[in-house]
Amino acid sequence: MNEFDLINRYFCRTTRRDDVVLGIGDDAALLRVPADHELVAAVDTIVEGVHFPIGSSAEDIGYRALAVNLSDLAAMGAKPAWSTLSLSIPQADETWLNGFSRGFFALADTHRCELVGGDTVRGALVITVQVMGIVERGTAMRRSGAKAGDAIFVTTMTGEAAAGLAVVQSQPEQTAAARRLIDKFLRPVPRIEQGRELRLHATAAMDVSDGLLIDLQRLCAASGVGALLDLSTSLLSNALLDTFEEAEAWRFALSGGDDYELLYTVPPSLAHIGEQHGVRIGTIVNGAGVRCRVNGFEHVPSAIGYDHFAAR
Amino acid sequence: MNEFDLINRYFCRTTRRDDVVLGIGDDAALLRVPADHELVAAVDTIVEGVHFPIGSSAEDIGYRALAVNLSDLAAMGAKPAWSTLSLSIPQADETWLNGFSRGFFALADTHRCELVGGDTVRGALVITVQVMGIVERGTAMRRSGAKAGDAIFVTTMTGEAAAGLAVVQSQPEQTAAARRLIDKFLRPVPRIEQGRELRLHATAAMDVSDGLLIDLQRLCAASGVGALLDLSTSLLSNALLDTFEEAEAWRFALSGGDDYELLYTVPPSLAHIGEQHGVRIGTIVNGAGVRCRVNGFEHVPSAIGYDHFAAR
Repeated sequence: MNEFDLINRYFCRTTRRDDVVLGIGDDAALLRVPADHELVAAVDTIVEGVHFPIGSSAEDIGYRALAVNLSDLAAMGAKPAWSTLSLSIPQADETWLNGFSRGFFALADTHRCELVGGDTVRGALVITVQVMGIVERGTAMRRSGAKAGDAIFVTTMTGEAAAGLAVVQSQPEQTAAARRLIDKFLRPVPRIEQGRELRLHATAAMDVSDGLLIDLQRLCAASGVGALLDLSTSLLSNALLDTFEEAEAWRFALSGGDDYELLYTVPPSLAHIGEQHGVRIGTIVNGAGVRCRVNGFEHVPSAIGYDHFAAR
Repeated sequence: MNEFDLINRYFCRTTRRDDVVLGIGDDAALLRVPADHELVAAVDTIVEGVHFPIGSSAEDIGYRALAVNLSDLAAMGAKPAWSTLSLSIPQADETWLNGFSRGFFALADTHRCELVGGDTVRGALVITVQVMGIVERGTAMRRSGAKAGDAIFVTTMTGEAAAGLAVVQSQPEQTAAARRLIDKFLRPVPRIEQGRELRLHATAAMDVSDGLLIDLQRLCAASGVGALLDLSTSLLSNALLDTFEEAEAWRFALSGGDDYELLYTVPPSLAHIGEQHGVRIGTIVNGAGVRCRVNGFEHVPSAIGYDHFAAR
């Protein structure tokens, strides 16, 4: 199978969106952005052994490659529209490609996100997806709008995904709780609908990919504010507490990555709307930095999140 | 240096285009496509040891990563606007990053193509760029419009780039001619201006990346026509003929890749416009497939072009 057979067999599908003037098969795609909308573009790369364990199923990898990108659109409050895919793979293995494309398109179809271009090359397993979405002009959420007094929320309390990765890497016995954690790691759900709702009310938003504390620090830095998290063990999921000791569970919840939940702030008067889409975890304050109380005690994390180029 | 220092130091620059509502630094970029225009999106990945020789300078790699993408916009007749960059690199080497960003931005600035998003991960050296451009609605060139009788052109006769790669790989002695060939390989010039001019006249266009014969076959297949190339040695560059035997020179010109010249067709009545932007190499005919005469004799290529997943 050569490169073009490969693209044709697994990635060329009939155009389904009427804003795709020209899809895969020419030098570039031609797309129509509706009037009074902005184009929203994000790119994420996932690497075997870094973003997913070596030996992950092709279907899970295909799903994840798109999910982490759609999550960025969710964080802006955008509607998914199109994607491009760059696939560097060691060989054109049909079983793998079949699985990958199944995982990728299952999620793409859920969100009507059409693949409009791509490139396949032979190399180490490195997958880059760029997603493009649209948002009504002037309504996108950003990281930079949080104000002192705003209530802080996450769509679902963090920690399960990092715990799921730990289960995948270490624990052969799989309880129902452990399987739930693994599923949260393997199949993060981009919070598109929540982002669409929240864009009209939130003062700031981002997705949590590297860890709650580090990502909240970034949101605070972009907004020029600080944050006080006030957390209790009742926020943690049963699956997490059934599988790990409480101290470990807090480490996953605060410093683990891969959640892809939305972190957002709303003015105090709209806290009830924040609560419709997530759980409250704290309050924006004047100043800088993130302070964190857990069960009433000050929490000092040993590590705050993931950094690709930190010394190990 | 951690991931964020790295991004900040080498890739965050002040926004220069007023259609960039929000650039690097949030979850996604926000961009404005002008009314009555279509968005044009292309993605290309380059891998060390496949698309550029191991040991290539970082500056050349940075230039190439963007150039091959801009060439896709040129082939559509689009104006470059924005790009995203995904960089998988083995380590955050400052000298390398400095060189890479210098090569990348030198070309980006030439075409006012603003970097609006990216991702940096630790892994094998794999670089993916997506470019986005704009084109006046309904005016983009495609591969599919060539008609029997159309004249076939390339912006510059092909072969020098593949010859340049051969020089890089094998020939230590560098004459002025050899240096010109190397430069054509290392620094392909995206034919943006020619694409802009030609979009109003050409019936079909694409860029030549994998080889003249294979790419012309693709254009013909997309258009449902055949082609007759009628070539003579006077078309080949002096640099090519000074450095290689004639038979070898033809192999580079017809089956070598990496030229990134535009291949385009114009109606016979507009052949004079085609000639303003390139050299005529043949004629579109009814039927299918590409026949090729060289100095009046039928030419049967031993290999027609580059395929990443062909058995070697």
